[in-house]
Amino acid sequence: MFDLSAYMTEKRSRIDHHLTERLENSPAPTLLTRAMTYSLMAGGKRIRPILCLASAEAVGRGDTGILTAACAIEMIHTYSLIHDDLPAMDDDALRRGKPTCHTAFDEATAILAGDALLTLAFEVLAHTAQSAGIAPDRWLRVIGGVARAAGRSGMIEGQMQDMAAEGNPLDLDRLERMHALKTGALIEVSVFTGALLAGADEWQTDRLGRYARNIGLAFQVCDDLLNVYGDSEQMGKATGTDHERGKATYPALMGLGPSRRLAEDLVHESLKAIEEFDNRSDPLRAIARYTIDRTR
Amino acid sequence: MFDLSAYMTEKRSRIDHHLTERLENSPAPTLLTRAMTYSLMAGGKRIRPILCLASAEAVGRGDTGILTAACAIEMIHTYSLIHDDLPAMDDDALRRGKPTCHTAFDEATAILAGDALLTLAFEVLAHTAQSAGIAPDRWLRVIGGVARAAGRSGMIEGQMQDMAAEGNPLDLDRLERMHALKTGALIEVSVFTGALLAGADEWQTDRLGRYARNIGLAFQVCDDLLNVYGDSEQMGKATGTDHERGKATYPALMGLGPSRRLAEDLVHESLKAIEEFDNRSDPLRAIARYTIDRTR
Repeated sequence: MFDLSAYMTEKRSRIDHHLTERLENSPAPTLLTRAMTYSLMAGGKRIRPILCLASAEAVGRGDTGILTAACAIEMIHTYSLIHDDLPAMDDDALRRGKPTCHTAFDEATAILAGDALLTLAFEVLAHTAQSAGIAPDRWLRVIGGVARAAGRSGMIEGQMQDMAAEGNPLDLDRLERMHALKTGALIEVSVFTGALLAGADEWQTDRLGRYARNIGLAFQVCDDLLNVYGDSEQMGKATGTDHERGKATYPALMGLGPSRRLAEDLVHESLKAIEEFDNRSDPLRAIARYTIDRTR
Repeated sequence: MFDLSAYMTEKRSRIDHHLTERLENSPAPTLLTRAMTYSLMAGGKRIRPILCLASAEAVGRGDTGILTAACAIEMIHTYSLIHDDLPAMDDDALRRGKPTCHTAFDEATAILAGDALLTLAFEVLAHTAQSAGIAPDRWLRVIGGVARAAGRSGMIEGQMQDMAAEGNPLDLDRLERMHALKTGALIEVSVFTGALLAGADEWQTDRLGRYARNIGLAFQVCDDLLNVYGDSEQMGKATGTDHERGKATYPALMGLGPSRRLAEDLVHESLKAIEEFDNRSDPLRAIARYTIDRTR
């Protein structure tokens, strides 16, 4: 039986170590770097970089170049959280049980720390691409893919749609499209990045893409369920907030039972997408199940 | 005699056309794309992309791949203006004679439009790299160089230092270091990008780097002079604001005459750096002189 908990602990430790090395390369860090580090090391689950590494392993490869790419994606995820938490956006004071970046520092520093994490992601991708033993054109596809997923046709547009929906709740179709952009695109490109850098062929990339789209949505449905039924202490953030803000959620739109079943179906679909892969995909399979079993 | 005005008009028209094509590729643009376009097409001088193109010409090449790279740098410049203008930062209502992005739209949209322009810059760089007839490793060096110049060791750190200096004015040394980061780094990488993509060798890159560092600072000294003595109507923004904010400027620290002479010396140094280049560098030479002759 594959031990996901041990696997994730080991990966998280490698990711955290690598991120710390990337950020704290100076004896007297600037205020900017301290704010970047504060948010980056605030105890995230590291789902995206772990997916990137697990995807590379499923294809049969895992080296430091891929670890760097995984960490770059986590930088982009962290920047998006910093900006989403800002007073002008979701105005959140707590994130993962700690004061958000603009609360711990100030608003201007938080905006710039987010900008700098986004920029650093591309710097480390381009820098690593010049030294790692992977073809430059694969790196260029990764950089382009990550930027596309994070940008105006992906994550940022998702946040725009999410904000526009406050007080004007989305229906099920538009909710799904919003999530596909806001969280799905970056999850999908995490899996794509690992696969591509590991040398995946078109068939593998296609299957892994289907895997990622399904668990991306499953992840979001479960986030909604946790926001309603989760334990705020375990989650490290307030729960019940979606309802207060009049946000559309899966439980609100389709009820608790059907939301749970939808999540289970999505996980089933994700497992089916990679059923022909060998046991090097066991981490991906376990992560798919974890998506709906987690408590935070 | 080289006609800089005609040269810049022609280049600006190509740049504007290319930027419009990149942004407005949809019959029903989203709110996000409209905010991005609003700021990107608000009548900037296009100094950075023009420098990129002129640098490539000095080395002997100019194709659409280089135009795209030049435009990506302008996207990054525009994002930095949008974020610098935010209420939490410089809180400016006017930019180039028009309401700033957060005034014309709202704060959240402005933050995200800035994020999206920064992200789009890397998307178009990586995308163009896959089709243009320039070696992928040159593109990777450009992407890494642009990210470095724009990030926490460049432009963003410069903005942090500039903000920290409000009410606590910098001395001449720290003012120069701040400008080298805040505006110098992106100007230098504009020249570097054009040179590298045009196939520059190490000697050419080194000379063009010296050219760029000198005109970058000259540009800033003249910006300070224009803020004191410029015509706000011609500038399209308020003047005298540096003094009101208690910001250190060259005229305040060293007086008007010495500031003018410093700018002239810097332009002289920039011209000397490329004196062995042939007449394909005439645009670069004319731009260096324009740096201190401009009225906006």
